[in-house]
Amino acid sequence: MTNPFAAGCAWIDGDYVPIDQARIPITDMGFTRSDATYDVVAAWHGKFFRLSDHLQRFARSCQCLQLTPPVPWDVMPALLADCVRKTELQEAYVEMICTRGVPMAGGRDPRKIANRFYAFAVPYVWIVHPEQQAAGIDLAVARGVERVGTKALDPTVKNFQWGDFVRAQFEAYDRGAYTAVLVDAAGWVTEGPGFNVFAYVKGTLVTPASGVLHGITRQTVLELAARRGVTARPAALDMETLQAADEIFLTSTAGGIMPVTRLDGNVLGDGTPGPLTRWLNDAYWEAHETGPWVSAIY
Amino acid sequence: MTNPFAAGCAWIDGDYVPIDQARIPITDMGFTRSDATYDVVAAWHGKFFRLSDHLQRFARSCQCLQLTPPVPWDVMPALLADCVRKTELQEAYVEMICTRGVPMAGGRDPRKIANRFYAFAVPYVWIVHPEQQAAGIDLAVARGVERVGTKALDPTVKNFQWGDFVRAQFEAYDRGAYTAVLVDAAGWVTEGPGFNVFAYVKGTLVTPASGVLHGITRQTVLELAARRGVTARPAALDMETLQAADEIFLTSTAGGIMPVTRLDGNVLGDGTPGPLTRWLNDAYWEAHETGPWVSAIY
Repeated sequence: MTNPFAAGCAWIDGDYVPIDQARIPITDMGFTRSDATYDVVAAWHGKFFRLSDHLQRFARSCQCLQLTPPVPWDVMPALLADCVRKTELQEAYVEMICTRGVPMAGGRDPRKIANRFYAFAVPYVWIVHPEQQAAGIDLAVARGVERVGTKALDPTVKNFQWGDFVRAQFEAYDRGAYTAVLVDAAGWVTEGPGFNVFAYVKGTLVTPASGVLHGITRQTVLELAARRGVTARPAALDMETLQAADEIFLTSTAGGIMPVTRLDGNVLGDGTPGPLTRWLNDAYWEAHETGPWVSAIY
Repeated sequence: MTNPFAAGCAWIDGDYVPIDQARIPITDMGFTRSDATYDVVAAWHGKFFRLSDHLQRFARSCQCLQLTPPVPWDVMPALLADCVRKTELQEAYVEMICTRGVPMAGGRDPRKIANRFYAFAVPYVWIVHPEQQAAGIDLAVARGVERVGTKALDPTVKNFQWGDFVRAQFEAYDRGAYTAVLVDAAGWVTEGPGFNVFAYVKGTLVTPASGVLHGITRQTVLELAARRGVTARPAALDMETLQAADEIFLTSTAGGIMPVTRLDGNVLGDGTPGPLTRWLNDAYWEAHETGPWVSAIY
């Protein structure tokens, strides 16, 4: 007998269900208004990585949107762990979601709706697969679409409103690139579909300071680089600086530290992942094994 | 026995289901990336209003997002009518949705996913209820949030990415207003949560030309006004012009022509819906009874 949760386990309205049967109401405003927030934590070798940091960011996101998950905060870690345990996966992509919920018939007032909480664990997702990470990817800078402005949508509140990201992704494919990073209306480099970006330029590691999600992997890289004695900081990043970088990489819970070896088709350095990128990658995965960022699931 | 579809009927994966049982996969990227488009057509006195215009707009929206509904276009009208007939409603809010769909395990490539089509009919939705329409509403101009820029998100492609709208709606409540219209980064008036806006100023009826959904009710108003001999046109609309308006109203399939009698708390004219607004409202609902815009459901 195979485990019916092997492909993933979701928690929906109090029940654990196999991922391919996990459904949400079509009338949930989390769908019909994308009025929702979420977070994703990785399970690696049977342990969560920085779970409390993800939960804290998720709590802040909920607060910013005036959303109150119906599941107590102190119950959530066990619930997420249960989702993983049912799958029997060692490496998982674990998502928690809070939505506005289902409005009363004829009603639209978001203040009067019971918010909903959903969660699921599925096999670990790689934005860039390991074999592609070894070679590095070609990153496009999107030209046909601009990153949404922060006065319209706060990118520090993790959200599903990916319209600009999806357009950039299609543009990347059209241009033969793997994925794309977006520039804002003022020309500053921001982020891409599900990742932050880093540039190592003249001995300093820089990642956009504003107009981006404060990624947990981004934060981890800043902390690991500091440990190695590398000057690393969030700062405004313009196209010229990005183009002049010795190394570029992307960061995400879904894939870790992903080397970029071509920018808009132009080869960076010798065309292989640079030494700092490789060191950070090793340190990043090492930190998943033991230490203060790790909590056991099994 | 009451009709199990009385509260609404959805079409999901080939089945007609009562609205409170209608669910979509939690992993549909229409949810997890808001990678979807939709349209809403009204049923009024048992007839669709401008169904072919809604279907044409929906088809264009799908094309812009590179989405292909799995239901043939010539089958869709009958499917939508079936949803309404099952409810036995005379007045309904009928939504059609196309989503990116459910990715393969571990995959994210939007080009490789089978797109999905959903539809539902529920009792007619009023953004402003008829009794409130008689008095008119207080419209706020949002200050704390800006309408998303058109280079990030094309507002002519109807979408669920309502983050800015929802923030504006909360701001309206905080300021004691009924709802809010948003201004873009350059200061131009755009649209609000689910509606276009019109201002009747110095004998001319104006609605924002760009940065907005090309609403079917908006189009209907432009056509009805022309019949009456009123100069009516899409044009850039600034705050000063809006504040100087003799009449202001909102338009939406969910509520028709909704008079605004206060703007940011300031009473417009004598504080009651103006004569042009009232004439347009009458003409709008009259046009739902018979004529080329109407198609029978029963």
